[in-house]
Amino acid sequence: MRNVERYPVEGPNALWQMYKTVSRVKAVKNFICIQFTRYCPSLPVKNWVYRNLLGMKVGSHTAFALMVMVDVFFPERIKVGNNTIIGYNTTILTHEYLIREYRLGEVVIGSGVMIGANTTILPGVTIGDGAVVAAGSVVHKDVEPGAFVGGNPIHTITKEQQSK
Amino acid sequence: MRNVERYPVEGPNALWQMYKTVSRVKAVKNFICIQFTRYCPSLPVKNWVYRNLLGMKVGSHTAFALMVMVDVFFPERIKVGNNTIIGYNTTILTHEYLIREYRLGEVVIGSGVMIGANTTILPGVTIGDGAVVAAGSVVHKDVEPGAFVGGNPIHTITKEQQSK
Amino acid sequence: MRNVERYPVEGPNALWQMYKTVSRVKAVKNFICIQFTRYCPSLPVKNWVYRNLLGMKVGSHTAFALMVMVDVFFPERIKVGNNTIIGYNTTILTHEYLIREYRLGEVVIGSGVMIGANTTILPGVTIGDGAVVAAGSVVHKDVEPGAFVGGNPIHTITKEQQSK
Repeated sequence: MRNVERYPVEGPNALWQMYKTVSRVKAVKNFICIQFTRYCPSLPVKNWVYRNLLGMKVGSHTAFALMVMVDVFFPERIKVGNNTIIGYNTTILTHEYLIREYRLGEVVIGSGVMIGANTTILPGVTIGDGAVVAAGSVVHKDVEPGAFVGGNPIHTITKEQQSK
Repeated sequence: MRNVERYPVEGPNALWQMYKTVSRVKAVKNFICIQFTRYCPSLPVKNWVYRNLLGMKVGSHTAFALMVMVDVFFPERIKVGNNTIIGYNTTILTHEYLIREYRLGEVVIGSGVMIGANTTILPGVTIGDGAVVAAGSVVHKDVEPGAFVGGNPIHTITKEQQSK
Repeated sequence: MRNVERYPVEGPNALWQMYKTVSRVKAVKNFICIQFTRYCPSLPVKNWVYRNLLGMKVGSHTAFALMVMVDVFFPERIKVGNNTIIGYNTTILTHEYLIREYRLGEVVIGSGVMIGANTTILPGVTIGDGAVVAAGSVVHKDVEPGAFVGGNPIHTITKEQQSK
């Protein structure tokens, strides 16, 4: 359902062998940048780091709240449109490391989207323009433009909203 | 459903313009105090900070666990009664910043309440005396006194409990 | 349902009186070790700390992801098998401190298990060999070997999986 590429691994689980899939230097550099952005009080500075040091696509006026955690291994697979809000402590993942394989997938978040606090977004998911994701959601599948979704797992609360 | 005040904004989303709604100095001061309380091993010291530096109402013997995160912008809108337990890493929010408006709401938690770990409490919610909120819940509406609720979104598990 | 031992308390709630149940020195020592493991980039070093400084049982090639939070008071009640993956920021609790009692319970996680990111595992739960727990789950009851579970509260998605 989610749009992920799958890579088989031999031997122990993929997480145990993570440094065969991403260099230690990149992981540590990303981690330092991400920790900075989690706590940085300036939104424009955060976006500069996201774009220039982590390789993410981030549109204009898009606001990442306090403590947002982007994928530490492959943040460059995250794309966010314009004037979108990513709520407090949201986790955006683009990798999943499993026992016999690992999977990578882009996360694409449109423009004018609102993601509530403490949400988890899984690899390979697209969230359409103007969508609203309630706080605490687990986004395990695509969200239609304009839809209002929430819960764990997410379900559609309303299809299309005008008044928001 | 939740009891929130709504303030429209012009231009980019409300989070992008957050420092028009709360001063940078207040936000940074609150953040430092909250980080201290998240890790402080003494519950009475935490409560002193909550009451005197963050403006919260906190009753006697109320215990905030490790890593609890209170609202960084408007913690003074949080009121908690006596002998209540707020579980590990619970998030208590009193603001939500949306695209075209922001909303503020008090969070009122009664006495003898138990909030499980990793719970998210949204602005404008009242949790009645003696209520129990299961771990990992998203509290998006009021909880009746004595009720046992859980899940995301929360639903009532039992109405009234004596034996707890 | 969960396998926990219950200890009644007199006076204020059990969390307020926590240092009667666990020494301040142990709590602070555990906290420092756990903070180290949450951020440590080497999985073998993490496992050494878990086994030798926190008293956990951790099998070979078991991989704890970034930010995993094990119980700060009673980590020695956690047992994990071989070649298991514990996802990003998973919380594993072995205690719950309530108003009139506190409860302790072992968490036993088998071999070849995959726990998704941001999962909360409650005290007294057993997760069988080869089980898969989706991201963001709240594990409030046992999980059968080989089962695929998810949601909050968890429900079974598929009973037994071969192909994973």
